[in-house]
Amino acid sequence: MKITIAQLNYHIGNFEGNTAKMISAIEEAKKEGAEIICFSELATCGYPPRDFLEFDDFIRLSDESIQELCTHAQGIAIVVGAPSHNRHPKGKSLFNSVYFLSDGQISFVQHKTLLPTYDVFDEYRYFEPAKAWNVVEYKGKKIALTVCEDIWDVGTDDPLYTIIPLDEMMKYAPDFIINVSASPFNFSHAQNRLNVVKANVERYKIPMFYINHCGAQTELIFDGGSIIMSENGALYDELPYFQECIRHYDLNEVQKGRSFSGQTKDKTALIHDAIVLGISDYFRKLGFSKAVLGLSGGIDSAVTAVMAARALGPENVRVLLMPSQFSTGHSVDDAMELVQKLGLPHDIIPIKDMYDAFMEKLSPIFGDLPFNVTEENIQARVRGILNMAISNKFGHILLNTTNKSEMAVGYGTLYGDLCGGLSVIGDVYKTEVYQLAEYINKDDVVIPINSISKPPSAELRPGQKDSDSLPEYDILDPILFQYVEKRKGPQDIIDMGYDPVLVRRILRLVNINEFKRHQTAPVLRVSSKAFGVGRRVPIVGKYLN
Amino acid sequence: MKITIAQLNYHIGNFEGNTAKMISAIEEAKKEGAEIICFSELATCGYPPRDFLEFDDFIRLSDESIQELCTHAQGIAIVVGAPSHNRHPKGKSLFNSVYFLSDGQISFVQHKTLLPTYDVFDEYRYFEPAKAWNVVEYKGKKIALTVCEDIWDVGTDDPLYTIIPLDEMMKYAPDFIINVSASPFNFSHAQNRLNVVKANVERYKIPMFYINHCGAQTELIFDGGSIIMSENGALYDELPYFQECIRHYDLNEVQKGRSFSGQTKDKTALIHDAIVLGISDYFRKLGFSKAVLGLSGGIDSAVTAVMAARALGPENVRVLLMPSQFSTGHSVDDAMELVQKLGLPHDIIPIKDMYDAFMEKLSPIFGDLPFNVTEENIQARVRGILNMAISNKFGHILLNTTNKSEMAVGYGTLYGDLCGGLSVIGDVYKTEVYQLAEYINKDDVVIPINSISKPPSAELRPGQKDSDSLPEYDILDPILFQYVEKRKGPQDIIDMGYDPVLVRRILRLVNINEFKRHQTAPVLRVSSKAFGVGRRVPIVGKYLN
Repeated sequence: MKITIAQLNYHIGNFEGNTAKMISAIEEAKKEGAEIICFSELATCGYPPRDFLEFDDFIRLSDESIQELCTHAQGIAIVVGAPSHNRHPKGKSLFNSVYFLSDGQISFVQHKTLLPTYDVFDEYRYFEPAKAWNVVEYKGKKIALTVCEDIWDVGTDDPLYTIIPLDEMMKYAPDFIINVSASPFNFSHAQNRLNVVKANVERYKIPMFYINHCGAQTELIFDGGSIIMSENGALYDELPYFQECIRHYDLNEVQKGRSFSGQTKDKTALIHDAIVLGISDYFRKLGFSKAVLGLSGGIDSAVTAVMAARALGPENVRVLLMPSQFSTGHSVDDAMELVQKLGLPHDIIPIKDMYDAFMEKLSPIFGDLPFNVTEENIQARVRGILNMAISNKFGHILLNTTNKSEMAVGYGTLYGDLCGGLSVIGDVYKTEVYQLAEYINKDDVVIPINSISKPPSAELRPGQKDSDSLPEYDILDPILFQYVEKRKGPQDIIDMGYDPVLVRRILRLVNINEFKRHQTAPVLRVSSKAFGVGRRVPIVGKYLN
Repeated sequence: MKITIAQLNYHIGNFEGNTAKMISAIEEAKKEGAEIICFSELATCGYPPRDFLEFDDFIRLSDESIQELCTHAQGIAIVVGAPSHNRHPKGKSLFNSVYFLSDGQISFVQHKTLLPTYDVFDEYRYFEPAKAWNVVEYKGKKIALTVCEDIWDVGTDDPLYTIIPLDEMMKYAPDFIINVSASPFNFSHAQNRLNVVKANVERYKIPMFYINHCGAQTELIFDGGSIIMSENGALYDELPYFQECIRHYDLNEVQKGRSFSGQTKDKTALIHDAIVLGISDYFRKLGFSKAVLGLSGGIDSAVTAVMAARALGPENVRVLLMPSQFSTGHSVDDAMELVQKLGLPHDIIPIKDMYDAFMEKLSPIFGDLPFNVTEENIQARVRGILNMAISNKFGHILLNTTNKSEMAVGYGTLYGDLCGGLSVIGDVYKTEVYQLAEYINKDDVVIPINSISKPPSAELRPGQKDSDSLPEYDILDPILFQYVEKRKGPQDIIDMGYDPVLVRRILRLVNINEFKRHQTAPVLRVSSKAFGVGRRVPIVGKYLN
C-alpha cells in the first residue's frame, strides 16, 4: 500500500486556498500511484481557528471543503482533519475529527478524544471529546485514525487524561496508525514528538504515520517534522522542519524498517529557523511584504533585523536610527555597520527636537520633580511614534525587538519600544539572543562585534546600563526560567541557591508588569512557555507582589 | 437552622486579606447564632486565579487558608470554595471544590462537575471534573453542595454537558442546596441567574442558597446578587448588586417562603453601577487612587470621566484637554463645562508644537505623499504620550475612553487614543453610551448637552465626522451586535434586511482590526460578549476579510 504524507502550510479561514492546496497534493499523489493521502489536523480551516469555530457560517465553509475534497477521493483515500457536528443533543456542538474520504464520499469519521486545554491550547472550549472508537478498513488494511493529542498520554508517568483512545482502537487489531496533528514548535518539541511516537509504536507494535502542520499562525509556529515510524520503533523518515513537503511511502518498506537517524535538533538553529518562518508567514498571511524597525546599535534590534532580512529580503526591511542626546556615538556607528552589511533601507532621525517639544509643554506641569522614568519613556515613545509613522505612511509592519528577559521584568516602555505588530524575540531570553547572534555570525560577521560585546543599555539617561537596575542576565535568565517555564515558587528557586532578596524582587517585577504584557504584540513562540496566549495571569493579583 | 450568606469581595492571590475577611464574617455569623456560613467559589484565592493555579506554591497558600479557616469552624460549619488536590494518578492535578468545614476540620469536599470552558472561562484548563457525588449531613440536615456551573445545565433545551450533578446527589435526598459561585456580571445575567436557580428549585423541590462573588477582577465584574429561593420556586431574598453583604436566614422561614419581588434590573443602571465598581476595584486592588484621561469635549470621554469621578472621587480624576489645529472651538468649551461641573483637576496642552516637531522630521521622508491616516495617528499619539507622561510622573492610571463600536471596527489609533491601563466603556456600544449619558443626566445635567447632541468626530482633520467613514451608529451597532454577540455570519445578517455591501464591509473591518484589540487595555465586561479574554480570534486569519 502506497501512502502519501502531505505536510502543508494552511491559512486560518482561507478555505479556498487550503482546499486548492490539498487538491494539488492529491493530484500529485495520484500520479505517484498513492492509495492514501494524509493531511493534518483541522486542515480545511487551519489551526488554531479559535472562536471562528463558534460561527455556524465558518463550519459550513469547512463542511463545503470536505464535500469538495470528496469529489477528488476517487482512486485514492483522503485522510484529513476538520470539525464535525455533534448530532447528540447533549455536549458541545462540535467534534475535532479526522475524516476518511473514499469512493467520493465520507466513509468514516473518528473524533478526537484528548482535547488539549493548557498552555496555548483551548480545545475543550470548542469540542466534545470522542466517546466511541473504531478503525477504518480500506483495501484490506485496518487503520487506526487519531488526532494529535490522542497519542500524547502514552509513556508518561503523569497522565493528564483518564482514557487512552488507541487502547480502545486496538480491540479491532489495526495494521497501522495515522495521526493527523497540528503540534506547534518549541525548541525541544521535535525530540518530544519522536519520543511520543516511539512510545506508541512500542506499545502497539504497528507502524505510525504522523503528519504535522507546517507554517506559522501569528504566534504559533508549526514546524512540520512529520514522522514515519516502523513497527520495531525505529525512525523510518522525518520530514523537513519549517517547510512544506509531500512524500510517498510504501507500507511494506515502512514495516520492514531501515536505518535513519533523523534531523539534527540544535536549539539555536531551530529557534533561528522558526523565527524566520514566523516572520515571513505573519507578513504573507496578512498580505504585507515590508517591515520597519528601530535599529539602536544594540544586539536585540540587530538580531531582529537580520532574521527579518532573511524572512522578507533585506530590501524589505527598513530601519530607523533614532539617536537621542543620551545615545553614545558608537550607537549610530554600530547600527550603520549592520545597515551597510545587509544593505537595509534606512533613515536617521534624531529625536531631540520632538523630545524638547514635549518637555517644553510638560515642564510647567512637572515643576521641580526630578528627571525619572517619565522622561525616559517620552524618548522611547517619540521613537514609537516615528516607527509607526513610517509603518502607517508606507504600509510596513513595525517589528518589536524586545527580548524575553525584558518582557518578563517589564524593562521596556509601553507604547514606546514595546510598539510593534509582531514581537520577534519576545520568547528569547537575553542570554539566548547572544547565542542567536553567535549562530548568525558563525560563518561571516553579520552582527557587528561591538553590538555583541558592549554592555547592554537602553541609553535613556547619561551612562545608563541595564545592570544599573537589573542583575546580570546570566543570573536573571535562569531565575526567570524557573518561574516562567517551570512554575516554581519563590522558595523552590531560593533553595536552588539564588539570593532570596533578588528572587523575590524579580518574581515581583514579573507579576507587577502583567499589565504591560497584556498590551504588547503577539510573541513568536519558541519555548515551552511564551508570554502571550499560552500564559494567562491576572493583572489585578496580589500573588508575590 | 440558621444560615449566613457572606457575599464578599475577594482579591486574587491575596490569601491573607481574603482569609481575614472570611474570619471576620464568621465572627459576625457566630454572634448571630448561625450554624452554617457560606462563602463563594474559590474564595481563598479569589476568582479567576488563572495560571497562578499552576504554581504549587499558590495552591499551598490556599491549603493553608483552608487550615486556618478550620480553626474557626467551631460551633459553626463553613462552606467555602477552594482548589483541592486530585490524588488519583490520572487526570488534571486539581479539582475546583467546595469544602465543608466543621468541628475544626475538613469534614466533606465535593468537587465541581461542570467546568465552564467558553467565553471568559477556562476551567478545564486547570481542573479535573468530579466523577463522584454525595451530600453532607450536618445537624440532622442533608445538604447538596454545588459549585457555580453545576446548576447551569438544568432547564435548557441545548445542554452543554452530558451529566447533571444534582441529579446524582438527589439519590441521597438532600434537604436543601448550597451553590457557591463566581458568576460574572453582564447586563442580562442577574435575570438569567434567577431563571436558573428557579429551574433547579422547581426540578428538585428543595430550597437553594446561591452565594455569588462580589467585586471586580480586572475585566470581570462580579455583581453579587446572591439568591435565596424557597422550595416552591419563589424568590425569598436577593442580596444587593455590586456591594458586599452578609445576611442571616432561618431555614424554616426560607422553606415557608414569602412574597419578595427582587431588585430592579434596568440595563443602563446596571451597566453604570458595574463600571463604577469595575474602576474602583481596579485601582484599589492595584494600589492606585488617581486616574488621568484625555477629555475631548465628546461624549465618550465625558461619560468615562463622570463614572471615574464616581468611582474615585472627582479630585482623583485629572483630565487633559489637548486641542489640535483641527479641534473646533467648542471642544475645549464643552470639556471645560464638564471640568467645572465636576471640579476635576485639569491641564490644557495644545498639541500643535509637538505635532509640528514630528512633521518637520518626517516631511522630507514623506515627500509629496498626501495627508492621510498617518498624520491623524500622529496627533492621537502625541496625546497618548502626554497622557502617559502625567500617568508616569504622578502615578496615575490612564483610563481609555474608546467605546465598543470603535473597538469593533478599529476606529482608533493604536498607541494613541487606544492607550490606557483600563478600557472603561470598551464593552459599551456608542448607542449605549448615549443611554449612559441620559442616565447620568436624569436628575441633573452633568454631561454637557452639547457633548451629547453634536455629531461624533475624532477632529483629526478639518470638518471630520465619524459618519464620513462609518455608517450611523444606529445602523452600525445592531450589525456589530449580531456578529460579535450572536456570532451570526454575513448571510444571516443580510437576511435580517441590512445592506449586503455594508454588512460585508463592517465584518471585514472587525476581523482586520483584531491586531489592534490584541494590544489594547483590559475592557470592563458588561455584555455577554466583550472584547478581551472572552473573545479569542486569530490575527492572521482569512475569514471574511
